Amino acid sequence: MEKVDYIIRGDYIVTMDESLTVVRDGAIAVKGNLISDVGGFDDISKKYSSEKIIEGSNRAVIPGLINTHTHAAMVYFRGIADDLPLKEWLEDYIWPAESRLLSPEFVSDATELACLEMLKAGITTYSDMYFFEDASGRAAKKMGMRAVLGAGIVDFPTISGKGADEYLKKAEEFINDWGKDELITPCIAPHSIYACGPDTLRKIKNIADKYNVPIHTHLSEAKWEVEEVKKRYGRRPVEHLYNLGLLDGKIIAVHCVWLNDEEITMLAKHNVGVSHCIESNLKLGSGIAPVPQMLKAGIKVSFGTDSAASNNDLNILSEMSTAAKVHKAISNNPTALDAKTALLMATQWGAEVLGLGKITGSIEKGKAADIAILNLDKPHLTPMYDIYSHLVYSARASDFETVFVNGRLIVDNGRLCTADEEDIMSKAREWRDKIK
Amino acid sequence: MEKVDYIIRGDYIVTMDESLTVVRDGAIAVKGNLISDVGGFDDISKKYSSEKIIEGSNRAVIPGLINTHTHAAMVYFRGIADDLPLKEWLEDYIWPAESRLLSPEFVSDATELACLEMLKAGITTYSDMYFFEDASGRAAKKMGMRAVLGAGIVDFPTISGKGADEYLKKAEEFINDWGKDELITPCIAPHSIYACGPDTLRKIKNIADKYNVPIHTHLSEAKWEVEEVKKRYGRRPVEHLYNLGLLDGKIIAVHCVWLNDEEITMLAKHNVGVSHCIESNLKLGSGIAPVPQMLKAGIKVSFGTDSAASNNDLNILSEMSTAAKVHKAISNNPTALDAKTALLMATQWGAEVLGLGKITGSIEKGKAADIAILNLDKPHLTPMYDIYSHLVYSARASDFETVFVNGRLIVDNGRLCTADEEDIMSKAREWRDKIK
Repeated sequence: MEKVDYIIRGDYIVTMDESLTVVRDGAIAVKGNLISDVGGFDDISKKYSSEKIIEGSNRAVIPGLINTHTHAAMVYFRGIADDLPLKEWLEDYIWPAESRLLSPEFVSDATELACLEMLKAGITTYSDMYFFEDASGRAAKKMGMRAVLGAGIVDFPTISGKGADEYLKKAEEFINDWGKDELITPCIAPHSIYACGPDTLRKIKNIADKYNVPIHTHLSEAKWEVEEVKKRYGRRPVEHLYNLGLLDGKIIAVHCVWLNDEEITMLAKHNVGVSHCIESNLKLGSGIAPVPQMLKAGIKVSFGTDSAASNNDLNILSEMSTAAKVHKAISNNPTALDAKTALLMATQWGAEVLGLGKITGSIEKGKAADIAILNLDKPHLTPMYDIYSHLVYSARASDFETVFVNGRLIVDNGRLCTADEEDIMSKAREWRDKIK
Repeated sequence: MEKVDYIIRGDYIVTMDESLTVVRDGAIAVKGNLISDVGGFDDISKKYSSEKIIEGSNRAVIPGLINTHTHAAMVYFRGIADDLPLKEWLEDYIWPAESRLLSPEFVSDATELACLEMLKAGITTYSDMYFFEDASGRAAKKMGMRAVLGAGIVDFPTISGKGADEYLKKAEEFINDWGKDELITPCIAPHSIYACGPDTLRKIKNIADKYNVPIHTHLSEAKWEVEEVKKRYGRRPVEHLYNLGLLDGKIIAVHCVWLNDEEITMLAKHNVGVSHCIESNLKLGSGIAPVPQMLKAGIKVSFGTDSAASNNDLNILSEMSTAAKVHKAISNNPTALDAKTALLMATQWGAEVLGLGKITGSIEKGKAADIAILNLDKPHLTPMYDIYSHLVYSARASDFETVFVNGRLIVDNGRLCTADEEDIMSKAREWRDKIK
């Protein structure tokens, strides 16, 4: 009988492995940061013993959800201005507040709140693009989350630097500093092809290749962006990226709302991973990405919340539910984006898009123990016929009770173990008074 | 100092009165079933005393939400089949289960579960169309909810009768039996103009006029329905209703997805109230109702969840959030359907659509005390800039803590007071085994 650190039990273990195995009355043995075994509870309890057993009656155990695009620290701007055109929202509210207040301290405090919200919503990994990512990394690590982090790179001065050369130098330092961390994966994050010229993008590609890190970038979010790129370079955005040599499996392409058929084919051919941020795209009136077409072409599509300032939460369950419904209506086809596909996008495919497909995204032997447990004993989850249907169409973020990241118990029965929730929320209220 | 039954305090009292007053550090005095007064806490506490004070720190107090369209008892079919075309879903799953099992006992037990879910999600009033509405009425009353109920009328035999004449007779009896109830409002509910011929619809109108009750009907949900009505009657659905003399403020017109401009003008001119069921329409791939156009024309639009079998929950907060986002994207206008309008649709306008605008829908002196209280002390509601934004874009059904209906405390700090939650859920699990 092998001793393990945890035995996690569940009425349903939704593994999201290649054959989409669901184990009824199952259990997971966790040793160190890894999953040692998954199987029926009877089997697991014959093979392993543990002092710490997480009980599983009326519980569903799923891989921790993956948020492939956010600007975590912008959670401090949640609801500061809504129902406005993007330009007014940015120029009158977000940018003035950012240029007045952004600092490593702001980013660190705000990232803690974002991680708290995400962890309690079953999210164990997120991918971030913002300023002062060093502070963000320290906060994520303190909170115990897995993260892919990259400071946004643009061709003009911002609060964090004078221009591309400075950002690129800092990005390289950041990659060197965090490259060996177990939880934090550094990446390089050109804001977009309209904010980074060809020269900057080529330098970014060189750095990405040199260090083997992902490139996280916004792509074809708004219609004007496509027109602007066509005007400047005579090509559509995807073609422009291809011409610059950037189109490959290292790219995390965020939004991809305005694609034509040729671009979809190109993204598929070059194994580009996509982050679909449906709630943000809807709320800002940007449009609706052609997700069923992308999936049909074989593109790995995942979910991103975008920032809580434009969404207004960090909730992958709700992105799944919204996406599964909206794409049915838009394609006039109730079989579009079914529940299993939505959950794949939120787990294993999300991990693959971030280059972490061998580490997280499913509950399998040898993978990191990134695990989220939901309580099914709720009126809105009763009765139960199909676990995938409930997870995508009926479950709420508040149904998550217990969360492990990398084998560590981070949320225990609804309470954060790694920091004080009240502290995090009072710091947010203090910052709010300065922001307002 | 006047004695009252409750003083309900809140950091924010969101009244939804005509001037959309929000009282900071406010309070509500409740006596019997009515709101006696609303104002600042200091004022209220000088004028009233009560043994029961509901504390309000970090709490938002709003009018109970109104669900203007559901088939409550279908909650027992939640998730039984998803991601299917409507025809297959109905013919292979829903109808066989209904014809095998429906009974007053089924409807009563299932309605209790639906009421439990709705009450815990801050919904205090719902409008229902299904079978065995007598059983439904008794269940809603036991649970303490306000409801507008009508058994569906069609021209063909069903489990509850042989044809139109029998349904009409029963509908009249139902109206007589429940007409004087304080919580239950009977209505008459032709399923649709494709399931009820002109003769049946005229008889329904006569009964509605005789007893002064609303007419609750599905209207232009699917595209084929419009074609079918045009083929049979040579007119589009709204024109057909007008020609039959049914188009007036008594109609609760559900869905209204496939309207042309003339029909929108007609609905507005005749004060028809609309129930917008966006999540159901999306999930079944029915289409997206032209809500911004209806609002612009002056139509009172409200929210309905439709049944939990097609949605898959009974959650008006989430309907608000989905609708506010989707209509921005569809109209390519981020200012479409702003947060205040969404909350009006979910409260006062919902009450008006049901003919209950003077009784419920806002927190005002003289109205029934139908009140829902949310806990704002949550990471996903931090920080706070604007209460409407938080209610529509960030709050979750699980944030509701305490709910009053008609002056009675129904949900107290998350627990139902009127029945045993565990009993209701175990009955659901027993029925599930028979359904499956």
